[in-house]
Amino acid sequence: MAKILVIHGPNLNLLGTREQPLYGKTTLKAINQELSRLAKNNSIECIQTNSELEIINTIHDAKKRKIDAIIINPAAFSHTSIAIRDAFLAVQIPFYEVHLTNIFARETYRHNSYLSDLSIGIVCGFGPQGYYAALNAALEKFS
Amino acid sequence: MAKILVIHGPNLNLLGTREQPLYGKTTLKAINQELSRLAKNNSIECIQTNSELEIINTIHDAKKRKIDAIIINPAAFSHTSIAIRDAFLAVQIPFYEVHLTNIFARETYRHNSYLSDLSIGIVCGFGPQGYYAALNAALEKFS
Amino acid sequence: MAKILVIHGPNLNLLGTREQPLYGKTTLKAINQELSRLAKNNSIECIQTNSELEIINTIHDAKKRKIDAIIINPAAFSHTSIAIRDAFLAVQIPFYEVHLTNIFARETYRHNSYLSDLSIGIVCGFGPQGYYAALNAALEKFS
Amino acid sequence: MAKILVIHGPNLNLLGTREQPLYGKTTLKAINQELSRLAKNNSIECIQTNSELEIINTIHDAKKRKIDAIIINPAAFSHTSIAIRDAFLAVQIPFYEVHLTNIFARETYRHNSYLSDLSIGIVCGFGPQGYYAALNAALEKFS
Amino acid sequence: MAKILVIHGPNLNLLGTREQPLYGKTTLKAINQELSRLAKNNSIECIQTNSELEIINTIHDAKKRKIDAIIINPAAFSHTSIAIRDAFLAVQIPFYEVHLTNIFARETYRHNSYLSDLSIGIVCGFGPQGYYAALNAALEKFS
Amino acid sequence: MAKILVIHGPNLNLLGTREQPLYGKTTLKAINQELSRLAKNNSIECIQTNSELEIINTIHDAKKRKIDAIIINPAAFSHTSIAIRDAFLAVQIPFYEVHLTNIFARETYRHNSYLSDLSIGIVCGFGPQGYYAALNAALEKFS
Amino acid sequence: MAKILVIHGPNLNLLGTREQPLYGKTTLKAINQELSRLAKNNSIECIQTNSELEIINTIHDAKKRKIDAIIINPAAFSHTSIAIRDAFLAVQIPFYEVHLTNIFARETYRHNSYLSDLSIGIVCGFGPQGYYAALNAALEKFS
Amino acid sequence: MAKILVIHGPNLNLLGTREQPLYGKTTLKAINQELSRLAKNNSIECIQTNSELEIINTIHDAKKRKIDAIIINPAAFSHTSIAIRDAFLAVQIPFYEVHLTNIFARETYRHNSYLSDLSIGIVCGFGPQGYYAALNAALEKFS
Amino acid sequence: MAKILVIHGPNLNLLGTREQPLYGKTTLKAINQELSRLAKNNSIECIQTNSELEIINTIHDAKKRKIDAIIINPAAFSHTSIAIRDAFLAVQIPFYEVHLTNIFARETYRHNSYLSDLSIGIVCGFGPQGYYAALNAALEKFS
Amino acid sequence: MAKILVIHGPNLNLLGTREQPLYGKTTLKAINQELSRLAKNNSIECIQTNSELEIINTIHDAKKRKIDAIIINPAAFSHTSIAIRDAFLAVQIPFYEVHLTNIFARETYRHNSYLSDLSIGIVCGFGPQGYYAALNAALEKFS
Amino acid sequence: MAKILVIHGPNLNLLGTREQPLYGKTTLKAINQELSRLAKNNSIECIQTNSELEIINTIHDAKKRKIDAIIINPAAFSHTSIAIRDAFLAVQIPFYEVHLTNIFARETYRHNSYLSDLSIGIVCGFGPQGYYAALNAALEKFS
Amino acid sequence: MAKILVIHGPNLNLLGTREQPLYGKTTLKAINQELSRLAKNNSIECIQTNSELEIINTIHDAKKRKIDAIIINPAAFSHTSIAIRDAFLAVQIPFYEVHLTNIFARETYRHNSYLSDLSIGIVCGFGPQGYYAALNAALEKFS
Repeated sequence: MAKILVIHGPNLNLLGTREQPLYGKTTLKAINQELSRLAKNNSIECIQTNSELEIINTIHDAKKRKIDAIIINPAAFSHTSIAIRDAFLAVQIPFYEVHLTNIFARETYRHNSYLSDLSIGIVCGFGPQGYYAALNAALEKFS
Repeated sequence: MAKILVIHGPNLNLLGTREQPLYGKTTLKAINQELSRLAKNNSIECIQTNSELEIINTIHDAKKRKIDAIIINPAAFSHTSIAIRDAFLAVQIPFYEVHLTNIFARETYRHNSYLSDLSIGIVCGFGPQGYYAALNAALEKFS
Repeated sequence: MAKILVIHGPNLNLLGTREQPLYGKTTLKAINQELSRLAKNNSIECIQTNSELEIINTIHDAKKRKIDAIIINPAAFSHTSIAIRDAFLAVQIPFYEVHLTNIFARETYRHNSYLSDLSIGIVCGFGPQGYYAALNAALEKFS
Repeated sequence: MAKILVIHGPNLNLLGTREQPLYGKTTLKAINQELSRLAKNNSIECIQTNSELEIINTIHDAKKRKIDAIIINPAAFSHTSIAIRDAFLAVQIPFYEVHLTNIFARETYRHNSYLSDLSIGIVCGFGPQGYYAALNAALEKFS
Repeated sequence: MAKILVIHGPNLNLLGTREQPLYGKTTLKAINQELSRLAKNNSIECIQTNSELEIINTIHDAKKRKIDAIIINPAAFSHTSIAIRDAFLAVQIPFYEVHLTNIFARETYRHNSYLSDLSIGIVCGFGPQGYYAALNAALEKFS
Repeated sequence: MAKILVIHGPNLNLLGTREQPLYGKTTLKAINQELSRLAKNNSIECIQTNSELEIINTIHDAKKRKIDAIIINPAAFSHTSIAIRDAFLAVQIPFYEVHLTNIFARETYRHNSYLSDLSIGIVCGFGPQGYYAALNAALEKFS
Repeated sequence: MAKILVIHGPNLNLLGTREQPLYGKTTLKAINQELSRLAKNNSIECIQTNSELEIINTIHDAKKRKIDAIIINPAAFSHTSIAIRDAFLAVQIPFYEVHLTNIFARETYRHNSYLSDLSIGIVCGFGPQGYYAALNAALEKFS
Repeated sequence: MAKILVIHGPNLNLLGTREQPLYGKTTLKAINQELSRLAKNNSIECIQTNSELEIINTIHDAKKRKIDAIIINPAAFSHTSIAIRDAFLAVQIPFYEVHLTNIFARETYRHNSYLSDLSIGIVCGFGPQGYYAALNAALEKFS
Repeated sequence: MAKILVIHGPNLNLLGTREQPLYGKTTLKAINQELSRLAKNNSIECIQTNSELEIINTIHDAKKRKIDAIIINPAAFSHTSIAIRDAFLAVQIPFYEVHLTNIFARETYRHNSYLSDLSIGIVCGFGPQGYYAALNAALEKFS
Repeated sequence: MAKILVIHGPNLNLLGTREQPLYGKTTLKAINQELSRLAKNNSIECIQTNSELEIINTIHDAKKRKIDAIIINPAAFSHTSIAIRDAFLAVQIPFYEVHLTNIFARETYRHNSYLSDLSIGIVCGFGPQGYYAALNAALEKFS
Repeated sequence: MAKILVIHGPNLNLLGTREQPLYGKTTLKAINQELSRLAKNNSIECIQTNSELEIINTIHDAKKRKIDAIIINPAAFSHTSIAIRDAFLAVQIPFYEVHLTNIFARETYRHNSYLSDLSIGIVCGFGPQGYYAALNAALEKFS
Repeated sequence: MAKILVIHGPNLNLLGTREQPLYGKTTLKAINQELSRLAKNNSIECIQTNSELEIINTIHDAKKRKIDAIIINPAAFSHTSIAIRDAFLAVQIPFYEVHLTNIFARETYRHNSYLSDLSIGIVCGFGPQGYYAALNAALEKFS
């Protein structure tokens, strides 16, 4: 049985209302429910925060709580936060990076992520399915 | 009647004491009082915070509170925070960007702002008058 | 019922023998078999080629054959072939881009792809599961 | 009593007819009238020219005429004319830079101006109100 | 019947004497005569000027005179004048860009033109025939 | 009498069906027929291929067949193929470069061509007329 | 007697457990104890935080508390936080910048710091001794 | 006997009054008088203009008037005018480039000149003596 | 006894006729004969192709045929083909890179090769002797 | 007992007289005396030279003389000498890099050093104390 | 009476024999003789060296010998030696920079000099007259 | 009979002891002996120096001594010394550039050499055989 942690980064609380043509109509609650369903008898926990600090602290705690893998949608912090990168470097927990939108079809500064090269893999543009694909991959590898 | 929100970003709490040759002697309190006076019978609220998180949350709340327009001096976050940009993208509230100093006469990394292209307009170098000009523009457009 | 086409680009014929620490032990044949299994009663066809020309022609033919969606691992051609991009532009068939390895943890010139911004989404670093995730997404959307 | 000079740069003679979604419907004549009204009993003069030479000469003359402050919309010359910059350097008359449109939401080469770092301040994207804001600032400072 | 305006930019008055190995022996007068002949019963007018100002004013006037299309060899101004670009943006008259020499075989700063992306098309390196090709295209489209 | 060879590069076989707002409705067959008509009693041959190899070999053969001039629309290969450049360098046959669309109004990586500085001249954005203009230029020079 | 403040930035709470080959085995607690010992009868206070906000506020407070000098290991925030830079600019308290690792032997984006040019000096790669060296320098200068 | 033409570019009419710490107290009139004295029985003519157009036309006329050499201080136009470069290319009159100030100790965009590589030589930072040195060089070479 | 494979890339079939001042008069046939002579009783095979595909396939086959070392003149593909790089990465056969001309004295885009850092060594500018030097090195190392 | 070598690079012989606001009043002799005092019963030797050659040779000799660690202030050679880097690479003696001034507050080309990534650590801006800090670190590690 | 020092940098000993079309036929001896003649009763001394070290030491010595001004042709060291720059910074002796050739018409890396912004002025492309012009300027200013 | 000079640059005296995995075990003495053997009855002389000055002087002397060709391993000076480039430009003696290691598989700043484009050819990564290959080429061409 794997212990999986899902971290949704800044502004994702507005999902379903925010820029629907870009982000779709699915709410974060619905995504989390589907993730729980897919996780079956594995442990899964989902948090959302707009705070860089809380993401760092959550990653630190994950180490103590023996989380097996993290699925993170770092949203805007992907492109600006070396501190989150350093948190992952410090705890050495494997993680997957998910973006709802196709970041390569957006502004140039969204093409680079401080996390990507540390991650196991990246999925973007798949909408909510990106989370499910990452969960499948994590479950196959860590449970 | 328009509902206007004014957000003062990091380090602006020190206004009036901080680097006076650059920022002048006017305090933030004085600016806010003048803004209230100019707003007349419109609704105006001013907040200052050194926290990126609080700015994001304030923008999210503004949506719920049906704010018509935001006047923001993002200070240092102008140049580093894509998360604040994404908050504006998410709520789609029109906003004006104000800088007290002439950012083009300062370090190169202050010349670019992640917010400018989303804003209605930018005013910089006018000192406190920049806020008043932005308020006038907002009142004319939204009240 | 959806008609799906899977295109494996140059050097992927060597999968399973090639740089195992990077690409893993699964052969292309095994991937294709799993894809067929997952496709269930949808139509799926997989080709591999080391030829840019053959990829272009295959994309052109897909139009005539009324393919609903393409899953492509363009491998090295991702970074060098505008002609394949133009083929996708010409036929306007939606497609997913898959990379077995995490291209962001490799040479800088592998970080950009001439196809990414045209694609629905990209998945990389997931190994063979990247294909399966793309197929799931395609089937959900097009069948 | 302050002596203010307003310089409108190239193509601004077409204001009101030119690219209305971008520049709006107000004519230059209307802007100048409003500026005169706002100037009250101060001296104000407005010129428009498509000629870099005429702008340089006007700035030189302003020195002789003891102009207190200049409000300039250098339009396209912002991005290409070091000679106008040198004219300002030579006469040392304080000036405000105004752009009707939000230049940061346009082509990259419009983001830099050879004048900005010399100016007291810049306002852009406010439409005609940018001129009025600059005039207010100038009158407060120089009258 | 189409109304065509041809604008020859700076230094083109010296054609036929100037750098013959690069620009050839044909004079501007000869080019204009051939253009008139090719225009048949359409209206055509050719001007040459070394003045950026005069080009801007000519483009403004073209609007009033209901010119259908402009053929312009902006010469050196191609690479330096945003003001001419703005004039074209303002009047929205379709135009063709002609260069006698192959600008891509010359200095790097001649490879970019502030006009090219606004133009219908560009022809360079064809010598005087570039003008004739542009005229043919304009007549076919606008007469 | 001149011997002219016309080479249409990758994806041009789809002309008339492909991205009509960008490329128009004229088919390649129609362009070739018009080229034959315009060539009068000169020799003209038109080929289309999606293969870089075939273009290289065709250029090599042109040398043996004593072709006087080549008109090439290298399409996507313009921006990626040094091998085609080297083929032209090797055979030293003069050539014209044609693009149907205005490449300067498209993605940045379409602005540079490995062939342009070797060519006699470039015409782009004229649609099918670009070919005809190139043929006229070639016939005037080589027949 | 000098009043010294030591600020440890994000992820340094994990020191001693985090990436030992890079950061060593000494804990933050041990470093702070050694700093206290070296400070002798001077006032010294050490804080650690993963929060950019808390660092800004701490610097603001330092002004009120009449701190003589700050020793800061800004960790990841060195490379991303202009807001912390602005806090130092605002309070004008002299400070030393310390990095445990040799940042020049790591990723390129760790080579630049928004704080370095404001600091009195930088020491990196010395491990915990970097703090002690900075403290010695501060005590010599400010006590 | 040599025929020498001296061209003073934009803003140099203000010499002696303009930014004295940078440009010194000598007026343009005084420089021209000294140039006349040094020219002895050679022909020398000095013009000043703030107009790019007039510089271009003057260079064109110099060809007809059989000027042997030009001494030009292109001032701001050095860095922005390809049209003046083209005028020199067209008339092929040898010229010397003079700058009163040390352009390498000023803004980066003043370090490059579109004229320098065409000129015989450049002298900068020598103040008025730069003109005299250029005149001496010209007289030695052309008289 | 070593098994050596020599691959001559695009346009090298024209050697001896192509740009003689740059490439010399020796034909490819003559080079291959000299290589055979120098290989003595080792196995050597030489192929030339203008096809990227054929080079990739040849490298794949070399693995099966237990080739000890490859000598490749990738010509233009050096600078554009990541697919050939990936083929070498996949088969892990040691190789030498040969260029007849001094690529550092040619266009900038010829200075970088996607193969160089993978190769054992590079020789360029030696003409045909570059091949012989590479063969000598290969025979010494692998036979 | 450790054997320490201190190398002072070019222009440091002038210390105490040279640019005092930047470099301070302490002479090199005084620094060396303090270093000797701090070294206690360890072996320490200090040399100063303006010669790149002598630095290279000194590093080579250090290998033969079994020096345990080097403290080097490479001064200007930090930014220009790959040969000194190669000397360190060749002898593999651990070293510390010291700069008296804060190089990050000076010209951009002083921000990079060819030695930094090879060094154990860097200290800059501490004035003479930088040497003492480096000596302390070296003695702790190597004695 | 002024004390002037002239320093000729590397490879200038070959003047008169070296690349005559570029450097001319005048020998260094002849230049030095002319400089002595022009210096009249002022003190002048000329040295040539191919050694960076000797130039640094000569500049250091100049301070002790109370040299008023230095005329230096740093040749290749202009573009590579920060150590010579630092020597000038250390001694604060005013100097003129001379280049025989027009460095702006040569390789790009010759366009920048580490000395130019420190110098009083630069003259290049004037051949030997550049030295004489510099001497005249120095004598006027320092004698 | 040819006169060949071999110049080994900085740090090559340590060959055989220095970084063996990179540079191998062969000593410089052994290389020089093999070069003498291969030179047969031609004249060959080998020098090694860590001094840029000595390399420049040696190249100057080579002219007087009528050396036919130089083989140089400039080591670190390849990437930093324009003065050595200028020495070669001055004497016009043909030369070959040799690097023991594959510089393209090392740091980016080793990829460019100030000598390469002047050399006849470059060989790198071949270890000592690079010298022998260069000698063979030189003997074939110059004896």
